[in-house]
Amino acid sequence: MSKIIIPDIPKICKSTTSHFLKYFKANQKPQDAIVFLEGGLELPFYDTDGEYLFRQESNFHYLFGVKEAGFYGIVKMDGTRILFLPQLPESLQIFLGPNLRPEDVKRMYGVEEAYYDSQIEEVLSKLNPSMIYLYAKGVNSDSGSQPAPIRTKAVYKYSTNETELHDVLFEARTVKTKEEIDFMRLAINGTAEAHRACMKYCKPGMYEFELEAEFYRVAYGQYGMRNFGYFPICASGNKGATMHYGHAGHPNRKIMEDGEMVLMDVGTECHRYATDLTLTYPINGKFTEQQKTIYNIALNCNRGCEAAMKPGVKWYDIHELSNKLMLKGLLEAGLIKGDLEEMYKNDVHFYFMPHGIGHLIGIDTHDVGGFNLGIPRSDNCSLKKCRSNRVLEAGNIYTVEPGIYFIPFLLESGFKNEQVKKYLVESEIRKYWNFGGVRIEDDVLVTEEGVEVLDKNVPRTVEEIEAFMKH
Amino acid sequence: MSKIIIPDIPKICKSTTSHFLKYFKANQKPQDAIVFLEGGLELPFYDTDGEYLFRQESNFHYLFGVKEAGFYGIVKMDGTRILFLPQLPESLQIFLGPNLRPEDVKRMYGVEEAYYDSQIEEVLSKLNPSMIYLYAKGVNSDSGSQPAPIRTKAVYKYSTNETELHDVLFEARTVKTKEEIDFMRLAINGTAEAHRACMKYCKPGMYEFELEAEFYRVAYGQYGMRNFGYFPICASGNKGATMHYGHAGHPNRKIMEDGEMVLMDVGTECHRYATDLTLTYPINGKFTEQQKTIYNIALNCNRGCEAAMKPGVKWYDIHELSNKLMLKGLLEAGLIKGDLEEMYKNDVHFYFMPHGIGHLIGIDTHDVGGFNLGIPRSDNCSLKKCRSNRVLEAGNIYTVEPGIYFIPFLLESGFKNEQVKKYLVESEIRKYWNFGGVRIEDDVLVTEEGVEVLDKNVPRTVEEIEAFMKH
Repeated sequence: MSKIIIPDIPKICKSTTSHFLKYFKANQKPQDAIVFLEGGLELPFYDTDGEYLFRQESNFHYLFGVKEAGFYGIVKMDGTRILFLPQLPESLQIFLGPNLRPEDVKRMYGVEEAYYDSQIEEVLSKLNPSMIYLYAKGVNSDSGSQPAPIRTKAVYKYSTNETELHDVLFEARTVKTKEEIDFMRLAINGTAEAHRACMKYCKPGMYEFELEAEFYRVAYGQYGMRNFGYFPICASGNKGATMHYGHAGHPNRKIMEDGEMVLMDVGTECHRYATDLTLTYPINGKFTEQQKTIYNIALNCNRGCEAAMKPGVKWYDIHELSNKLMLKGLLEAGLIKGDLEEMYKNDVHFYFMPHGIGHLIGIDTHDVGGFNLGIPRSDNCSLKKCRSNRVLEAGNIYTVEPGIYFIPFLLESGFKNEQVKKYLVESEIRKYWNFGGVRIEDDVLVTEEGVEVLDKNVPRTVEEIEAFMKH
Repeated sequence: MSKIIIPDIPKICKSTTSHFLKYFKANQKPQDAIVFLEGGLELPFYDTDGEYLFRQESNFHYLFGVKEAGFYGIVKMDGTRILFLPQLPESLQIFLGPNLRPEDVKRMYGVEEAYYDSQIEEVLSKLNPSMIYLYAKGVNSDSGSQPAPIRTKAVYKYSTNETELHDVLFEARTVKTKEEIDFMRLAINGTAEAHRACMKYCKPGMYEFELEAEFYRVAYGQYGMRNFGYFPICASGNKGATMHYGHAGHPNRKIMEDGEMVLMDVGTECHRYATDLTLTYPINGKFTEQQKTIYNIALNCNRGCEAAMKPGVKWYDIHELSNKLMLKGLLEAGLIKGDLEEMYKNDVHFYFMPHGIGHLIGIDTHDVGGFNLGIPRSDNCSLKKCRSNRVLEAGNIYTVEPGIYFIPFLLESGFKNEQVKKYLVESEIRKYWNFGGVRIEDDVLVTEEGVEVLDKNVPRTVEEIEAFMKH
């Protein structure tokens, strides 16, 4: 039975445009200035005749929501939006369906005006903007990448600003509008349901990819979420210690053995909004004592972080809190020894959790703006893994994803490190050598008062998981 | 229950390498000449931190079968293969798993030698080749695209040949080795089974994408075929008249109505070998008289082509045969009128089937080499749609995919065309205005004697389909 999620694109994009214009201080700009954005193009498989399913450029998607390739768009300072669509040859209709016309585009995307891309120069000349703001220069703090060169040379007949727009767009996107939040809540719920189905489906002896396929059966087959914003990580046993397992070299092809856990870090996109949840559970539905120990420490980190999150709190402090809670748990479990603060200062936590506590999520899985405020990134080996150093605001959506991993080469390096080895109880740690890892990842909205966990319908405690998986 | 298909990569690639070297006339080349190939690189989503699941470059895959990005390879004239793997920083193991070493690569891919990519210059200097053949210049006849520029500047210290390799590789790939055929037979069988599951699953009121998800549940969840070589076309009702429906602008989101047919053109890849099957069937499991009429004409074309195919036959003649069979059927059904040969000369068939009868299939869905022999492409409006003009040889694998479509804008243009309109029975054709289309696509191996249809376990006749879909 379909529970398809259908976005109201005009409504979402009107909300994001108006939100963006506030951040852009549009009312302080010359009123004949414009923002000019270029949509994405089709992407072939190398020099073959195949191609990737089209994926829109993220900022263009943010303001226009256009599903098709080859578009251009203008946002005026009063919020008016103009789209330009490619004029395709008539014969292409045989392959792609009836060609869109400007009136279709106005209706589908709720923009005030629409023209063919051949009319860009003419429209620009009528608008005669005193300034054209372009998404042309700036750095994505997660990838280090910069925008593609501007294809539309005609814009350079006018005064252009190539730097301001990038960071304002990124900053605006860190705080979601009500319409985005409502939509992401639906998408994350769909992803949570797909995870629940996997928990019911999971059995020893299956290949990991069988869970991936089961996930997709529900996420796409029921909720209509066709694309993955990142490749699914279905990591059983010791594979759970590989953060991005599931890539082309390790395509979720291990058999899931009785007694192991599986770490499922999987989320589909919905109208290009990402979801990103991780569940870790025993493949046979019943935790061993070892698994329970580690799982409960991770869950305590996850719950501790969520309880501490609210506007005004620094993301770095959440990362620190999680790692200290983990150290406390590992200490109680006898895997490490020594003074907590001293261990933290010596980066002992890094040997068990070598990644950041979470990241902004939105149109991109690692959503933009994590370092937009000019606060420098820490160069501490643990803190520098954080994908954000912001101070939390209502409307942020962050993943909260503490993990505890037993990564042999990393722990071996710890055993050899003069500063660290004295805190590690090697004999105990070696009992977990093939354990893999646990990660517990929620998608969490920061509210005025605290947080709303958007995936609250997934079983999380040991008791909930065991009860849910009992057949 | 998993029926996972696991490729024996060393075996397949040894067969293709030896096959390629025959086409390359390696024994007539200087024995210290080498072929140098560059594997594909990771591809990001624009300037974001996301990326596409890695997809290997096709020719590199053909000779080496490497799943990972950033490799380079050498083939020597005696068949020796050398791989170069990227030397990744130790810290990346946290994310990707233990770094591969040369000895792993030798074992996984069955090559004689393996080194880190930092050693390319050193190895080249030891080999001191009198000629390096590069995949650098040439045109893919389906896409019109050319290879990417060579990244490894060190090769230009030696004599290089940038033109010969391209067409020889393409020519070699048109004739599959026994090992490739055996593997593709397994993959196509898996795709056929996924289609059978969809036929059982299909019900009026479902969204088209529910069939797409069901297909993937079986193709991936049971057979382990993770990737699509082309996006799935699940086109119900009049959407069946759009050849490449299912793209991002029309993502299989129509509700399938009682009384309509669905055209399912879907195939997953297996170890990068494409499958490509199309089934068209009534959504409620029972053909109407109109559907039966059109379906049986298309099936007659399909069976007629397959019966005519054998070594020595021209692909253009198969295309012509199919279109003449279609005209005969449409004439008998009263949709067209006049002399058959005259209608064919006047391109009447083009208004019902505006695409080629099929294409080579292999590592690429539209596999390479269709026009490799220098025979010029016809400029006839129908024949020029063919993706090949070869003379058939044993070992070719072609799709055979006759279709009959009711494409309103195309038929309207026929009604207005002085040369064509007299043959069209407009009043009858308009009864099919919302019919959509039928396409019946097999993957067919040319043998010494004739053909082997590789998907023979899908129900194809009206009677077989109705019996199979009866619940």
